[in-house]
Amino acid sequence: MQPDRPAPFVVLVAGGTASGKTTLVNRVAGRAADSLVLSHDRYYLDVVDPKRHNYDEPAALDTAQLVHDLERLRAGQPVALPRYDFATHSRLAEGELVQPAALIFVEGILVMADRRLRQLADLRVFVHAPADVRLARRLERDIVARGREPEGVLRQYLSTVRPGHRRHVEPSRFHADVVVDGEAPIDVMTAGLAAMIHARGGPL
Amino acid sequence: MQPDRPAPFVVLVAGGTASGKTTLVNRVAGRAADSLVLSHDRYYLDVVDPKRHNYDEPAALDTAQLVHDLERLRAGQPVALPRYDFATHSRLAEGELVQPAALIFVEGILVMADRRLRQLADLRVFVHAPADVRLARRLERDIVARGREPEGVLRQYLSTVRPGHRRHVEPSRFHADVVVDGEAPIDVMTAGLAAMIHARGGPL
Repeated sequence: MQPDRPAPFVVLVAGGTASGKTTLVNRVAGRAADSLVLSHDRYYLDVVDPKRHNYDEPAALDTAQLVHDLERLRAGQPVALPRYDFATHSRLAEGELVQPAALIFVEGILVMADRRLRQLADLRVFVHAPADVRLARRLERDIVARGREPEGVLRQYLSTVRPGHRRHVEPSRFHADVVVDGEAPIDVMTAGLAAMIHARGGPL
Repeated sequence: MQPDRPAPFVVLVAGGTASGKTTLVNRVAGRAADSLVLSHDRYYLDVVDPKRHNYDEPAALDTAQLVHDLERLRAGQPVALPRYDFATHSRLAEGELVQPAALIFVEGILVMADRRLRQLADLRVFVHAPADVRLARRLERDIVARGREPEGVLRQYLSTVRPGHRRHVEPSRFHADVVVDGEAPIDVMTAGLAAMIHARGGPL
């Protein structure tokens, strides 16, 4: 980033599991000349006991580090983003060096639940889709695409994903500047979010 | 049934797929000295094209026959209940002869959506559970227990089960005398419904 460039425009995108937020963010980011996507998923803390771990509680994430990285990027400084290995349930030693961008997306189920992230954002977006539609999509991804066992996926959904959503994700919706319909066609969602960023003075 | 016995007490039990209605009905029926369960599922019409069939529309069911059978049972007459073969998607030639009982349950996703069935009932019950919980239960049953393919189960859920629920099942809830919590422990649900039937003068 040049020293005379304006501060990055930061868009927070939250929503339940399989609401469509990652697809939306990647599509809109792809339209920008200079963008960066920060996934909260990168900031998972090391797991001690995978069988009893709860990925759906805020305590599972190193959000302080994400806030710190976002502040650095906003100040025009490069950052080594953490990389999380879902196979070993731990952070890799080597981060991924990224440069600041004019448009920065911060996305994850719990990003809207954190006051610091909300305050650092220029636009707060919540992607909403009904719970059963999201479960169907998640099963499609985890069972059909990734080959996971249906028993385990359903057990995790009912024991941690669903309670975490109701406790932390759904209530955070009311902090959003705009709620996007996660059942809309992706082109419609993409055009809508791009227009909103443009209207708010963002680089799109 | 003896000629001097009172007319059967009829309980209508509706609710979405996997809401828990069949388990509840079987438990309460098991407490009665003399009961009979009529499942709307028995009354499916023969399927012409299984690939394009919609089991979640009222037109898929021979509800007129169910009304007729229920009227006969209420009048103290025996009935040959239809038997449906889900393997061949057609009604079997031989019915199942049943005698009237003091307590008759009529259960199915669409029983509350039919005015004639509502009028023939002494108590109308709707079992409610959230859509994602019901989908998880249905997948547990269809994929884990019955070994069906996840793709097909999810496709059917999104293409016919979910739209049918929203169009026909959920609106029928408001005809119920009581809405039962389908997430409650089964013993609690059973005791509650038995107490309601008793309070209304039913044979329990």
